[in-house]
Amino acid sequence: MSIVVTKIDRSAQPLAADFAGFGAATVHEAQGRKGLLDSALRPIYRPVSIAGTAVTCELAPGDNWMLHVAVEQCQEGDVLVVTPTSLCHDGYFGDLLATSLQARGVRGLVINAGVRDIATLTDMEFPVWSAAVCAQGTVKETIANVNTTVVCAGQKIVPGDLVVADDDGVVVVRKEEATTVLEKAKQRVANEEEKRKQFEAGELGLDIYNMRERLAEKGLRYVDSEPDD
Amino acid sequence: MSIVVTKIDRSAQPLAADFAGFGAATVHEAQGRKGLLDSALRPIYRPVSIAGTAVTCELAPGDNWMLHVAVEQCQEGDVLVVTPTSLCHDGYFGDLLATSLQARGVRGLVINAGVRDIATLTDMEFPVWSAAVCAQGTVKETIANVNTTVVCAGQKIVPGDLVVADDDGVVVVRKEEATTVLEKAKQRVANEEEKRKQFEAGELGLDIYNMRERLAEKGLRYVDSEPDD
Amino acid sequence: MSIVVTKIDRSAQPLAADFAGFGAATVHEAQGRKGLLDSALRPIYRPVSIAGTAVTCELAPGDNWMLHVAVEQCQEGDVLVVTPTSLCHDGYFGDLLATSLQARGVRGLVINAGVRDIATLTDMEFPVWSAAVCAQGTVKETIANVNTTVVCAGQKIVPGDLVVADDDGVVVVRKEEATTVLEKAKQRVANEEEKRKQFEAGELGLDIYNMRERLAEKGLRYVDSEPDD
Amino acid sequence: MSIVVTKIDRSAQPLAADFAGFGAATVHEAQGRKGLLDSALRPIYRPVSIAGTAVTCELAPGDNWMLHVAVEQCQEGDVLVVTPTSLCHDGYFGDLLATSLQARGVRGLVINAGVRDIATLTDMEFPVWSAAVCAQGTVKETIANVNTTVVCAGQKIVPGDLVVADDDGVVVVRKEEATTVLEKAKQRVANEEEKRKQFEAGELGLDIYNMRERLAEKGLRYVDSEPDD
Amino acid sequence: MSIVVTKIDRSAQPLAADFAGFGAATVHEAQGRKGLLDSALRPIYRPVSIAGTAVTCELAPGDNWMLHVAVEQCQEGDVLVVTPTSLCHDGYFGDLLATSLQARGVRGLVINAGVRDIATLTDMEFPVWSAAVCAQGTVKETIANVNTTVVCAGQKIVPGDLVVADDDGVVVVRKEEATTVLEKAKQRVANEEEKRKQFEAGELGLDIYNMRERLAEKGLRYVDSEPDD
Amino acid sequence: MSIVVTKIDRSAQPLAADFAGFGAATVHEAQGRKGLLDSALRPIYRPVSIAGTAVTCELAPGDNWMLHVAVEQCQEGDVLVVTPTSLCHDGYFGDLLATSLQARGVRGLVINAGVRDIATLTDMEFPVWSAAVCAQGTVKETIANVNTTVVCAGQKIVPGDLVVADDDGVVVVRKEEATTVLEKAKQRVANEEEKRKQFEAGELGLDIYNMRERLAEKGLRYVDSEPDD
Repeated sequence: MSIVVTKIDRSAQPLAADFAGFGAATVHEAQGRKGLLDSALRPIYRPVSIAGTAVTCELAPGDNWMLHVAVEQCQEGDVLVVTPTSLCHDGYFGDLLATSLQARGVRGLVINAGVRDIATLTDMEFPVWSAAVCAQGTVKETIANVNTTVVCAGQKIVPGDLVVADDDGVVVVRKEEATTVLEKAKQRVANEEEKRKQFEAGELGLDIYNMRERLAEKGLRYVDSEPDD
Repeated sequence: MSIVVTKIDRSAQPLAADFAGFGAATVHEAQGRKGLLDSALRPIYRPVSIAGTAVTCELAPGDNWMLHVAVEQCQEGDVLVVTPTSLCHDGYFGDLLATSLQARGVRGLVINAGVRDIATLTDMEFPVWSAAVCAQGTVKETIANVNTTVVCAGQKIVPGDLVVADDDGVVVVRKEEATTVLEKAKQRVANEEEKRKQFEAGELGLDIYNMRERLAEKGLRYVDSEPDD
Repeated sequence: MSIVVTKIDRSAQPLAADFAGFGAATVHEAQGRKGLLDSALRPIYRPVSIAGTAVTCELAPGDNWMLHVAVEQCQEGDVLVVTPTSLCHDGYFGDLLATSLQARGVRGLVINAGVRDIATLTDMEFPVWSAAVCAQGTVKETIANVNTTVVCAGQKIVPGDLVVADDDGVVVVRKEEATTVLEKAKQRVANEEEKRKQFEAGELGLDIYNMRERLAEKGLRYVDSEPDD
Repeated sequence: MSIVVTKIDRSAQPLAADFAGFGAATVHEAQGRKGLLDSALRPIYRPVSIAGTAVTCELAPGDNWMLHVAVEQCQEGDVLVVTPTSLCHDGYFGDLLATSLQARGVRGLVINAGVRDIATLTDMEFPVWSAAVCAQGTVKETIANVNTTVVCAGQKIVPGDLVVADDDGVVVVRKEEATTVLEKAKQRVANEEEKRKQFEAGELGLDIYNMRERLAEKGLRYVDSEPDD
Repeated sequence: MSIVVTKIDRSAQPLAADFAGFGAATVHEAQGRKGLLDSALRPIYRPVSIAGTAVTCELAPGDNWMLHVAVEQCQEGDVLVVTPTSLCHDGYFGDLLATSLQARGVRGLVINAGVRDIATLTDMEFPVWSAAVCAQGTVKETIANVNTTVVCAGQKIVPGDLVVADDDGVVVVRKEEATTVLEKAKQRVANEEEKRKQFEAGELGLDIYNMRERLAEKGLRYVDSEPDD
Repeated sequence: MSIVVTKIDRSAQPLAADFAGFGAATVHEAQGRKGLLDSALRPIYRPVSIAGTAVTCELAPGDNWMLHVAVEQCQEGDVLVVTPTSLCHDGYFGDLLATSLQARGVRGLVINAGVRDIATLTDMEFPVWSAAVCAQGTVKETIANVNTTVVCAGQKIVPGDLVVADDDGVVVVRKEEATTVLEKAKQRVANEEEKRKQFEAGELGLDIYNMRERLAEKGLRYVDSEPDD
């Protein structure tokens, strides 16, 4: 009873380039600190920063068959998001599948499992965020779903949602919220630029953010030396 | 009752250079997906790719005395494979031992434990795969075996077996099977080159591997949209 | 009842540059194998080597408010040492706080938690050792202590102690012992240089350290082949 | 911008007792192997088996304030499902909150974090599944959501969904699917009873499930002894 | 340069029985949420609750020699606190050492490492908190310190400090603060008893602790249904 | 190319009952501290102690098909030893398979993966050592080997070897060495009984084992108080 959903809403695609410029931490903050995938997902090379529309793919543990099914559903500007139905760190993905995705214009891969051929993937500059690097191959025996709503590394991913990934990790942005979040990210970055200049000039966060009074209210005391333990 | 075995079968040595060219994932596949060490073993720098004949060394936890014994048993083209008798992430190995191994023509170190001096090891271009980086030193009080058959990171290693290691991890190849595995690896790589061209040209794995019929038989269905949850 | 201690003993500061030259493993050995922080703390980029006087900061889990308080206590040549009061891998620290610390001449950050903006931190060449990289932000609601004696990643840190950190990890040196440890580190390095030449010339540790007799006394035997299992 | 949703759909409540009788593994199978929370969630005592309607609660790391808000939303037959917005193993829940929940007829707690007072909770026979046991207390400074859709331990939980938990773990059943899943669970158990008798009588799964032919087709061979390695 | 300190301050001993009655979570709260050892330390059987004066013992990894030295320093009412100088989960402690400690009136063992013979230890009712259970034995080759100040599982332990341990974990109380902490623990328990009655009667924490106004100020809103995602 | 080896050497079977009486730690010591499986394997209930001849079974990750093949190879007095070809914590084994094994007189299961139905398994008193408890089911698509030599949880297991398992863990004894190891275990236990009486009488290990002189030679010093840090 596995399905492949062939039509997904890629309306947020035009915003992807701007999101890639902001990066995961800024976008995560801009949308109210939600949508961050588990920090166990790490990029195979650095620095790297991408954004794209999610195509989702489930896999049985130790079985990468559905990746080939998923490739066909990918288009220019997508990010392939892969999650096994139970935890397994096998190397489900390597340079041949990356070649196929790159030929279709896919921006990168996010997988809550292992990958291999990372030297070649790095040479190809094909971005991957994975939970492991592992040369262990997989079989092709069991089917699962493509382009259904999944939970990957702790976050719900709806096909067509924007996936933003860089050295800091991976964030998902709901497609309906993408315009609003992008606007807030822009404001945040503008605000940070201003703050950065203040910090460079030696101003303190305590003063920039007016924290001293509230800290005192909470009971923070300044003393000359540490009392005996 | 610890022993050092002084004569081991290095007959697979002439094949090492070819194996290094193929890398861990290809070799692992070529021998039927066996022989992969635990993916917790990672290289201290990348990219890197070696192969050589295994010299094995056991250590007591927190004790690196036997490494000095093992060095004497190493020859040009060997890979030193080290496993503590129980898990401990201390830094058993550093730049002086690496200097000694490099002087003997040893290709690299695989250790299911920690190492240190990794900045110097990287400068020296001495390849190391380890389970940890840790500055914690060790004592020299307890003896163990050198060049006996061991289990390291989940795999049986017989001295003289070929160890193939790169960015993807570490694989052991039985010396008796090395010629056969090498042949299969060559075929695999040739086959992959052909496939790579097809993928680059935009062909799909679904078609290249004739998967569509079998997927349909398993019950995979294509639909326009995801049914309500 | 949280406090900020405003006066700490930075008398070991003048020794910091020399310590940075020796690195964590050498210093750890020189002081009798003590003072090493948990090896889970890893640098965000490599190679890197620093030393400086510790300014300590506690945080509530998921709350980075006290970092702003700690910044004000930092001076040229300090290393900020941060530990949450219970384990949490959120990204407590990013590029704005790094800018503020760099403006004050702080040498680096050691944090038993997560950081973010690591691409920017790497570009800025601001050294960080952390237990995780995580884009998850934090709140500013709860106060804690600055410049009190803390346990960070398994080691007691007294403000003003020297923190030595490099690719191998992080070591703390008591300020009262810094001169003695530095002297021992110098001797150790001099001794190692001599040893390195011997190793490069192909001499064995077994001979350099006169180990053969003691190994024989412990019962180590050399045999031609491995007995049957 | 945190909210408490005060009206949730508890229409699946009448089915809870039957689900508790079947247990997590059976229910998980009956609904097509989906809905299982991460196996890191373990019961604090055994044996135990419950089912109930989910009331969800998010927490800031190290902050259990919202638990008090969630308690008010709980009714007879509910299971409280708690997830911190980022990972933290503090002990968010103890015997006083359990007393409050038990007074309201709540069936148990599922929390992707730590709990404490487990000796008392065991004496009270208040069932808890947690990721840790930890005496570390929490603050009450930050608000979050109650009775919104959450991801807890890798699964989406909609308030009012059925949560089924026992010695094997925790499974969520969508309320819309509860009747269907219950029916399948009944069939499965009936079928298993029959199978159990066959197994007790010494019949083999190979014959009961007619596996021999398909195994042979896959290439399984029976041999007298293991070929040399 | 290892030492055994033969005289330690056991003046907090008379308070131990009262502390054991309160348990780890209560004592941890009573002293301002400090002093909790890493929650990875778990009791080998439950329920269990002890308190006693700490005798400390360091061990080399994989080496339990110093335990025999430590036993001689133990007296009626002590708790032996053991920490390896680097992490190793070997089984350093078994039923013979427990017999020896029990003969001296020692209350229990806290060890940041492994133990074995746990079936016998359970039969003997000798309480142990450990990081692992492991049958792997250890050698007796390397000396270390007894009754010096150590860091064990993340907390500083001074010999003579009170160690309080139960099903929830292990807490250390400075001997100088023991009387004050005990008083606060008594008040806390008295206060909790009152609260428990209110909770049993169905009163809500929201009202008992007057939280509603502050929650509203923070911006918490009550709504009938969840807004669309 | 998967095989089932139908004839294995069960000559060590008559010794199994005696081994079960001694337990894992004693047997591990008696054979020179080798053969211990990873301590991550834990019994699902306690106390428990078994021994039997190993029947080995490999599994593909997430696939328990070969368990049914393995059951047929099991006889009275065997212990089934199961290892996935790559790490996966799914629940491969439950009460029906246990019923089948129990009907054949199998002593227990050792599996480097997950199991489920543990409440029923406990009621049945069917001993299991596993790396996880997980309700996640598995498929039946991929074949592997039965009764070949495997590495399970870090140890080589040859079919017919004796597996000894109790609350402390799991040890393998080579069948050729079983008689010798049993003899040594008897001596060890006799010796321990004597020692236990001495310890109960308050004698110290320092004296029983004559450790004082050697400790002094190593440099251990007794002092009245700890020097300043």
